[in-house]
Amino acid sequence: MKKLVIGVDIGGINTVLGLVDRTGEVYARSSFRTAEYPFFDDYSAYVEMLVRTLRELCAAMPAGAVLSGIGIGAPNANYHTGRIERPVNLWKFRSGEPNPEEGRRFFSLCKEVGNSFPGIPVRITNDANAAALGEIAYGNAGGMRDFIMVTLGTGLGSGFVAGGRMIYGHDGMAGELGHVVVEPGGRQCGCGRRGCLETYVSATGIKRTVFELMARETVPSVLRDVPYDKFDARIITEAAQKGDSLALEVFRCTAERLGRALANAVAITSPEAVFFFGGLAQAGELLLEPTRRYLEENLLPVYRGNVKVLPSGIPAQNAAILGASALIWNE
Amino acid sequence: MKKLVIGVDIGGINTVLGLVDRTGEVYARSSFRTAEYPFFDDYSAYVEMLVRTLRELCAAMPAGAVLSGIGIGAPNANYHTGRIERPVNLWKFRSGEPNPEEGRRFFSLCKEVGNSFPGIPVRITNDANAAALGEIAYGNAGGMRDFIMVTLGTGLGSGFVAGGRMIYGHDGMAGELGHVVVEPGGRQCGCGRRGCLETYVSATGIKRTVFELMARETVPSVLRDVPYDKFDARIITEAAQKGDSLALEVFRCTAERLGRALANAVAITSPEAVFFFGGLAQAGELLLEPTRRYLEENLLPVYRGNVKVLPSGIPAQNAAILGASALIWNE
Repeated sequence: MKKLVIGVDIGGINTVLGLVDRTGEVYARSSFRTAEYPFFDDYSAYVEMLVRTLRELCAAMPAGAVLSGIGIGAPNANYHTGRIERPVNLWKFRSGEPNPEEGRRFFSLCKEVGNSFPGIPVRITNDANAAALGEIAYGNAGGMRDFIMVTLGTGLGSGFVAGGRMIYGHDGMAGELGHVVVEPGGRQCGCGRRGCLETYVSATGIKRTVFELMARETVPSVLRDVPYDKFDARIITEAAQKGDSLALEVFRCTAERLGRALANAVAITSPEAVFFFGGLAQAGELLLEPTRRYLEENLLPVYRGNVKVLPSGIPAQNAAILGASALIWNE
Repeated sequence: MKKLVIGVDIGGINTVLGLVDRTGEVYARSSFRTAEYPFFDDYSAYVEMLVRTLRELCAAMPAGAVLSGIGIGAPNANYHTGRIERPVNLWKFRSGEPNPEEGRRFFSLCKEVGNSFPGIPVRITNDANAAALGEIAYGNAGGMRDFIMVTLGTGLGSGFVAGGRMIYGHDGMAGELGHVVVEPGGRQCGCGRRGCLETYVSATGIKRTVFELMARETVPSVLRDVPYDKFDARIITEAAQKGDSLALEVFRCTAERLGRALANAVAITSPEAVFFFGGLAQAGELLLEPTRRYLEENLLPVYRGNVKVLPSGIPAQNAAILGASALIWNE
């Protein structure tokens, strides 16, 4: 009997769903706009829409197949509690509302979806953990028992796998490598502190580094023609690929901080590999080669030559739903 | 049928063995000098002596009891391979010998002990991991699934437990919190790098901080009467307990670096608690109170108020053999 899983990726803009098998083949896909349900009191309607779309996908199941589970990847999702906890961009209170305690914003999505699919396991975790599990099921971490997944988007997310199992932590909130402080008193971070790794290493971080270097150096660069708000990681990558020396220096600085932070993380979990996923990771060897170098340089001798730095192997097109589905395959 | 375990602690000076039950009661104890077998070619004789002592303990088993396993704690021990790998102070090559490759110094102790006790599980791990498992079996971590054990001796050792299991890493060498770099370009470390946490936070580290502060400040202190080589953590603790302001400042500086490093480690494994064990930990609240404060101050908001900083609860007298025996109870 063919086993299938539905992977659900909840983003701030869209919710994307896919019916997939163990090999990563996608049998059916669907999506709807998360952004149509932005407020706290839209949450019930969101759940209804999600359940309806899940039912449609079930109806598309090939004859003789069974649904083994529903895996959900979402920001601020807690594997232990099955909830999305105080998400930054989902189901916010309306501005102007009397200021309610932020503590109310816990969304028990696993339970609510599970009520509509009795007997079917429903699991949730954050995007970076889902990507880590996706790397095992569909990517380059097959058979690996110890590795780190780093996702480079607007911020820096991470998932740690140790002894073949995800590290969730006692509260379900482990794996915040992006908020390891690498420069005490350094760049201001959205978390309210200063010097977090993601203020240097992320799509946003690398842009800040560009502006810091344009201010500090006088070397000409094509990047000087781009206004601050037009920048993205792709523009910096393309400039570096064309040999722009400022853009190359930006990657070197980024890799230096990343290599140091990874060396400290390796001393804790001693992984076989570190994988990179997401927009900035598409810079490929421009980022990975110097990261590898700085990582080696900063490693405790016993780990040297022992930790691979690799691109993610999850098929990019369906990465998010594959990652979410891997939550079920991994159980 | 009463199950007993033999815990073995291999130190550079002594090897201590104890026959213990699940509650930590010690039925028999023995020890011999590791230091009588210092060289590479003494290793076979060491194994013979160890096996003979193990047999003597077995002979002391109460009627009706069975031996469930032998757990060994040793420096540089690798749980995965069952070996002691390139230990710093054990079975070294004789000076003056033709310089053999360091790579030969792998000692397959589990296998060799196992050959003499067929059918009995023999496990080995490093001292800090053994202490972590001991904290679960006999100390304050009973029932905890996620915590960090920090052992403060000459250096700083650590063991990380996540989801109820020890993090060993892909090579068995995880948990080197003492070699997280907290001050790039900082104090010289025995590992060949600079700025490792243990150069600041350990019996040796705190002594270096005393001397740094005596040089920097002019405040009078009883510590100024003690020559460098006479220092130990106890003298500094006693001075601080008597209100010596330099000694108090030493603890504050130590806790500040420790709190920062722990905040970064928490962002990776999100533990419920951090336990402190070993000589310097006997300073108790002198160290723990400011560590708690600096940890909180440096934590990502989501973790604040959520991580306990606690003394180890393993009975001090038999801590090392209890920790080693816990390797078996934990399986």
